[in-house]
Amino acid sequence: MNGAESLVHTLLAGDVDVCFTNPGTSEMHFVAALDKIDGMRCVLCLFEGVASGAADGYARMAGKPASTLLHLGPGLGNALANLHNAKKARSPIVNIVGEHATYHIQYNTPLTSDIEGIARPVSAWVKTTQEAAAVGADGAEAIAAARAAPGQVATLILPANTAWGDGGLVGQVSDAAEPEAVADQTVDKAAELLLGGPAPLLILGADALFEEPLAIAGDIAMATGCAVLAEGMNKRLQRGAGRFLADRIPYPVAKATSLLAPYRSVVLVGARPPAAFFAYPETPSLIAHPDAEMFELARPDQDCVGTLRALADALGAKRGAAKLQEASRPPRPTGPITPDTIAAAIGALLPENAIVVDESITTGRGFLPITAGAPPHDWLQNRGGSIGLGLPMATGAAVACPDRKVVCLESDGSGMYCVQSLWTQAREGLDVTTLLFANRSYNILKGELANVGAGNPGPRANDMLTLDRPDIDWVEIASGMGVEAERVDSADALCRAFERGLAHEGPNLIEVIV
Amino acid sequence: MNGAESLVHTLLAGDVDVCFTNPGTSEMHFVAALDKIDGMRCVLCLFEGVASGAADGYARMAGKPASTLLHLGPGLGNALANLHNAKKARSPIVNIVGEHATYHIQYNTPLTSDIEGIARPVSAWVKTTQEAAAVGADGAEAIAAARAAPGQVATLILPANTAWGDGGLVGQVSDAAEPEAVADQTVDKAAELLLGGPAPLLILGADALFEEPLAIAGDIAMATGCAVLAEGMNKRLQRGAGRFLADRIPYPVAKATSLLAPYRSVVLVGARPPAAFFAYPETPSLIAHPDAEMFELARPDQDCVGTLRALADALGAKRGAAKLQEASRPPRPTGPITPDTIAAAIGALLPENAIVVDESITTGRGFLPITAGAPPHDWLQNRGGSIGLGLPMATGAAVACPDRKVVCLESDGSGMYCVQSLWTQAREGLDVTTLLFANRSYNILKGELANVGAGNPGPRANDMLTLDRPDIDWVEIASGMGVEAERVDSADALCRAFERGLAHEGPNLIEVIV
Repeated sequence: MNGAESLVHTLLAGDVDVCFTNPGTSEMHFVAALDKIDGMRCVLCLFEGVASGAADGYARMAGKPASTLLHLGPGLGNALANLHNAKKARSPIVNIVGEHATYHIQYNTPLTSDIEGIARPVSAWVKTTQEAAAVGADGAEAIAAARAAPGQVATLILPANTAWGDGGLVGQVSDAAEPEAVADQTVDKAAELLLGGPAPLLILGADALFEEPLAIAGDIAMATGCAVLAEGMNKRLQRGAGRFLADRIPYPVAKATSLLAPYRSVVLVGARPPAAFFAYPETPSLIAHPDAEMFELARPDQDCVGTLRALADALGAKRGAAKLQEASRPPRPTGPITPDTIAAAIGALLPENAIVVDESITTGRGFLPITAGAPPHDWLQNRGGSIGLGLPMATGAAVACPDRKVVCLESDGSGMYCVQSLWTQAREGLDVTTLLFANRSYNILKGELANVGAGNPGPRANDMLTLDRPDIDWVEIASGMGVEAERVDSADALCRAFERGLAHEGPNLIEVIV
Repeated sequence: MNGAESLVHTLLAGDVDVCFTNPGTSEMHFVAALDKIDGMRCVLCLFEGVASGAADGYARMAGKPASTLLHLGPGLGNALANLHNAKKARSPIVNIVGEHATYHIQYNTPLTSDIEGIARPVSAWVKTTQEAAAVGADGAEAIAAARAAPGQVATLILPANTAWGDGGLVGQVSDAAEPEAVADQTVDKAAELLLGGPAPLLILGADALFEEPLAIAGDIAMATGCAVLAEGMNKRLQRGAGRFLADRIPYPVAKATSLLAPYRSVVLVGARPPAAFFAYPETPSLIAHPDAEMFELARPDQDCVGTLRALADALGAKRGAAKLQEASRPPRPTGPITPDTIAAAIGALLPENAIVVDESITTGRGFLPITAGAPPHDWLQNRGGSIGLGLPMATGAAVACPDRKVVCLESDGSGMYCVQSLWTQAREGLDVTTLLFANRSYNILKGELANVGAGNPGPRANDMLTLDRPDIDWVEIASGMGVEAERVDSADALCRAFERGLAHEGPNLIEVIV
């Protein structure tokens, strides 16, 4: 057994059975091992940012890491932005990055680079394997690092001679460690604050946004009168009819500040103290009321769900008391396409158990309220703020959940970043319906230019914020990658196309002219 | 004057007057400054890898740096692979990377990352500006670093508050330093080796591949009987009728080893000791004959051209004696499309003074010999080995040289990496004709799988090496980004389409089904 084979066996032993990949010469032995060993689903991506974004989406929905296979430092570089997003989402990923044979690195050939240096800013764990016999053990260590609650990016660098060398040994994969529990006195302090403090608020993040912990938070709200909010951008928010609804903190600072203004006693579970996404001149970075007491009950890497249970118990909160969201759908919209009619179309038609991947940026700011009463669904957002995650994340989510409909809400500016995702969706026959909102601009930046006090754009600045000249034809681009596509320019047409898309097995894209 | 304005003034004072950009919120003041200050050509790229690859192509043809404008760490991450390629090409680039306001970083909001850590593996110079008053001076330092011969990647990180803060001062840009001269005795030693050593060979790289130094090398060859070769992948090789021809060292190791086998006295000017691109089991990394004496006469950062002049003088080589390439074109090909008929079409039709951007990988291995006698042209290759540079590099070369035809020889696998380049070509009306070779596979990897001893691919491995299922429709993709495109499946049709494309002002793409 060579090192590459020992790694494939180790990954499978660690229940890592999907690999999003774009291999090169240095990874050929790993690729060859896939033919010899059954059990690994390999998904080819035509750009490494697709692989890393798909691994993030997969991890969020599967609750376990996928692996990626990347070609030396530059291949890792191409994956970097979506690994940043995955790091911020605390999604578990095991990167396998090929490297030159150890003895070849000294010759500084074209692809030689500081792979560890490239990996470190986005990885919680980085290691370069030194010999074939160590590959399996290093792989097991990578899996353990990725599984550290609630999830981490681990990067294993695999020199070619450790992959092709004999003497590979399958690594012993340890069970995933339980997340750290929060001390009873910390729970008691939070309980006191929510019960006794003025104007209490509970902010949830990370794994506290699943159905069960949300329901517990709803029980706590009934017992204490506290409000409950989710962070601004969330890894996986379970919502819809019959679930406890946690509104999210909005992106625009003025709106967020105004929403948070009433609260003075803030308890954080898996969430950080609310801060503006960006700094703006003369505007504070922290957006809660300056007099608010901020108490971190559980960090994201602690046992958020268990902590909420303990908090409910400490409060004597009646379980099942939460006021759950009633079922309701907006009427099917008619008329022109606007952010409101798009929101209504989604609210009217979103299928039960859908996975919504939301990178709709400005177009989508009204999507959450109007879909609150839709059938139960998962809502995934970009935690790292680096645009381009939507199409890859939808790809990975669909690989993880072949029996669920994935609805990808994507903007034209963001969609262009990892547009190659569409090809992978076509090759794998993934059940993704993408609504592509074409406002032909980086619309958010027009607002940001004003927000930072830079004034109204003149012609040169405006050119940097617009995607027209030429308009992008998303129907042609999607079709060019094998994905069925159509364009709509009325709410009626959008609804009909969305229904057709959802009924279709396999990927499809609707260009929505905003 | 705020910091951003001082930076734009400084860049212009340093003759950096093109910016390939994809800005975000943290760069809005820089964007606003562009409206207030004349002289900077801003080129919007829909993905940062396009920006960095275009900056490389621009630098190679303009002989000076462009700037890029990138959005925090992840934007830099997206640019990383082509910055790696630029580093290996020693192309000068000034990256401007936005960062959160200095006081905002502590809140670890979504886009917070270790930008310096991401920059370092690809940058010779990295600095984070600390206050508005320092922006200009730091910008001047970045320009000086980029200009260090023959060129470096410099990365200036610009916190938002240093951009919007008042008190900006225009930096004093120093003149570019002359490259270091090589000592006389070193030149004499090389002269002795070429004259007196057995089987002499001169290998050229970096700036030694322009018309003048090549002619001098040709004179040296006449005087000494040495052979002259270029490195395997070259930054800018000036060639064609009336120039001295330096063949390149081929990529396949067996061919390269066989080509180099006769030589025992090897002098390097701007070139490294020849090494295999990748290591293969049981194959040495160094590919020159083991008994060859290897002498580094000039490093790439030294004065390669002056050194060749001095060497010719030391040898008493008659100037103008070089045997120059005669004009010759192959006949216009007919019949089916093959690598040979494609090569013949390029050789038959390549226009005078063309800039050829070559990322044709396996399809293009025969392109160089058959185009040797075409009218004079520049031939640009990927020095860093990270595929995806072709389309962006062609974009930047066309920005640098609006009066020259750019011919981009691109493969389907590589072309998908930065496919967004086509949109920028359309927006800027760049005169680029792309021949897109669609063999619907990572063909090179099929050979590499065998080369590394991993055997023939089985079905799972084969799936990772093929781009079919679905076939990519490049005509639709190009058209979707505003670039005229057609598909050809015979040599006749290729020739006619190539002629039409060259006659067309503005970008066009020909999908060549291989």
